[in-house]
Amino acid sequence: MRTGPSQEEIRRQNLGALLRHVHLRGATSRAELTTALGLNRSTIGALTADLASAGLVSEAIPKQRGRGAGRPSLVVRPESARVHAWAFSIEVDRLQAARIGLGGVVLDRRELGRPRGLVAAETAPLLAGALKEMRRAVPPGTIGVGAGIAVCGMVRREDGLVRLSPHAGWVNEPIGATLATELGADTPVVVANVADVCAFAEHARGAAAGCDNVIYLYGDVGVGAGIIAGGRQLTGHGGYGGEVGHMVVNRHGSPCECGSRGCWETEIGEYALLKAADRPEAFGREAVLAVFDAADRGDARAQTAVRQVGDWLGFGVGNLVNLFNPEMVIFGGTMRDLYLAAAAQVRSRLNSVALSACLEHVRLRTPQLGNDAALIGAAELAFERLLADPLDAS
Amino acid sequence: MRTGPSQEEIRRQNLGALLRHVHLRGATSRAELTTALGLNRSTIGALTADLASAGLVSEAIPKQRGRGAGRPSLVVRPESARVHAWAFSIEVDRLQAARIGLGGVVLDRRELGRPRGLVAAETAPLLAGALKEMRRAVPPGTIGVGAGIAVCGMVRREDGLVRLSPHAGWVNEPIGATLATELGADTPVVVANVADVCAFAEHARGAAAGCDNVIYLYGDVGVGAGIIAGGRQLTGHGGYGGEVGHMVVNRHGSPCECGSRGCWETEIGEYALLKAADRPEAFGREAVLAVFDAADRGDARAQTAVRQVGDWLGFGVGNLVNLFNPEMVIFGGTMRDLYLAAAAQVRSRLNSVALSACLEHVRLRTPQLGNDAALIGAAELAFERLLADPLDAS
Repeated sequence: MRTGPSQEEIRRQNLGALLRHVHLRGATSRAELTTALGLNRSTIGALTADLASAGLVSEAIPKQRGRGAGRPSLVVRPESARVHAWAFSIEVDRLQAARIGLGGVVLDRRELGRPRGLVAAETAPLLAGALKEMRRAVPPGTIGVGAGIAVCGMVRREDGLVRLSPHAGWVNEPIGATLATELGADTPVVVANVADVCAFAEHARGAAAGCDNVIYLYGDVGVGAGIIAGGRQLTGHGGYGGEVGHMVVNRHGSPCECGSRGCWETEIGEYALLKAADRPEAFGREAVLAVFDAADRGDARAQTAVRQVGDWLGFGVGNLVNLFNPEMVIFGGTMRDLYLAAAAQVRSRLNSVALSACLEHVRLRTPQLGNDAALIGAAELAFERLLADPLDAS
Repeated sequence: MRTGPSQEEIRRQNLGALLRHVHLRGATSRAELTTALGLNRSTIGALTADLASAGLVSEAIPKQRGRGAGRPSLVVRPESARVHAWAFSIEVDRLQAARIGLGGVVLDRRELGRPRGLVAAETAPLLAGALKEMRRAVPPGTIGVGAGIAVCGMVRREDGLVRLSPHAGWVNEPIGATLATELGADTPVVVANVADVCAFAEHARGAAAGCDNVIYLYGDVGVGAGIIAGGRQLTGHGGYGGEVGHMVVNRHGSPCECGSRGCWETEIGEYALLKAADRPEAFGREAVLAVFDAADRGDARAQTAVRQVGDWLGFGVGNLVNLFNPEMVIFGGTMRDLYLAAAAQVRSRLNSVALSACLEHVRLRTPQLGNDAALIGAAELAFERLLADPLDAS
């Protein structure tokens, strides 16, 4: 008979499970780990000792002692200051860079404006420059696990090539490979779509923790979604699943940058809102927020625009609820602002479009990780290798 | 350290893996099983002996001897005549019942007309009657693993309740529980949506074998989809995922039986085609096929109808390709006929709606299992328990 996984394989799996637990949940007592992982006390002790000697976790006696008479259970923490990933977010009009500690802690960050039209070969040196600047403040003896990049565009799963980012003006841009060349062989680089990494982060440690069927809508100029189905990210065959912004909802609608017509993002994207608010010359996140502000202050034109675009938001969410039967929809990026400003329209249209069985358990939420979701999610891309095999990758 | 799965657990997993292999692939030599399952010859021999003594497989020397000088490898076959599941398909205007042997062989079948409006309490006795009739021809000593039902409607995952089947006129019909009462405790009953079971069957042993991202469109009066994402069935939170017929594609379109307006099935369902062909009083599968026949014979009105409805078919498939990035779309039920009659329109509209990255690997196919997919898929629901633990369930 085959003997199943070897002791060594099981040990690696358990090391990964323990490290993942404290990475996602934070400081955890040995007693809680025993229950959570279904392992006995001595195994937890041995695993923790291995992770501690690799510099990945630390153990301490908790300050608050319980009422029990016994020894307090040691608390295991991720070594957030010592183990880090580099995280980047490439947005239409800005670049973000951060150093994220194990446990999802933002240790340092930079933000740069991004001239429109900057290609990968021009963007990578800016990201590498931000990294090098942050690296000066990193104490010696730390462990870097690599870098993750979130991009507002379609990313090929097999190699991280950005196939298309219409709003950033990118076609087939190898940003991952270009940045990897800048950073050197000891810093592996992983690339993914921004909505996918936000969904991953909110599912791992945010609003959707514990939910197996989630749609995370992300809006900036365009609109995308990260989709969790049955507890796993929906990637599709090439990595392009979740292009909800290009679901055609208005067959005779406006031309879309993708070449089609009446795509959902032509009705709910940045330009749709600004045009409806009679500000067709404006662009950018500030201009979008100004419309919500104006609506809030009673500007009738802005209010009409918000209601109209909010109605289309609810319409498309209704379609997605029928297709995916999620238990949660999260509104991120500018979709958060739109949802908050037009919740009544969203809910009303959603209720009229969605089937009642699909609607009955769906919760509408805003991101718990706020604007850090993209960076924290990008870091998760890099941490994944460490969590899969802690002692090999560290 | 935890010792991992026990020898007994590993043995059960391996028994299931071997039985699943011959169930899906048919007769397989021991040598091929050794390679396919990654187990050594003596383990394969021991597992096969266990399954054979439980009456689930048989072994024989192959008739055709190879060129090699050594002993021929014994061939392991599923005991199709001896191990069976009962399969039922509840369609809008007919009921199908079958006895399906291990390996997916149709051993016997019955078809009954179904008066519209028949509720679960009236339908279950008809199904049970067909089963009892077929049971008379079953030789002694056979093993029945239970029954599966495919329903054109939304099925609650946790208990098989049919929440809604607008075209069959069902709301909250407990067909599974009702049939289980008819059949007795030794025949467990599982219920699922017909598009889901067809997708499962085509993925397991049909056109989509080996494809991890698949959309199976199923049309009768309405339209639904079974979706395979990342190799697994997309069920959604309650089991209602894949309600593509209620993706609204035409906001100002016709009212839908679901209560909404402009749902995809109002543009591509049975009624849309018959109306476009100027046959609004007609209904049923025969009437639909008559339109395709007429178009084939040069009837201009029928040809226009087929082109118009085919265009809407391509439109919706384009949306689904952007959302799911599948590698294959299968057109089943009446969607098969529509696709074959209007392939040029489907392809042309799909190409204009879908993003090029999502399009590049997508293949359009008709079902390999033909009209038996629903019954074979329904039987798979029942076989699943046997395959999960062959010696316990048999």
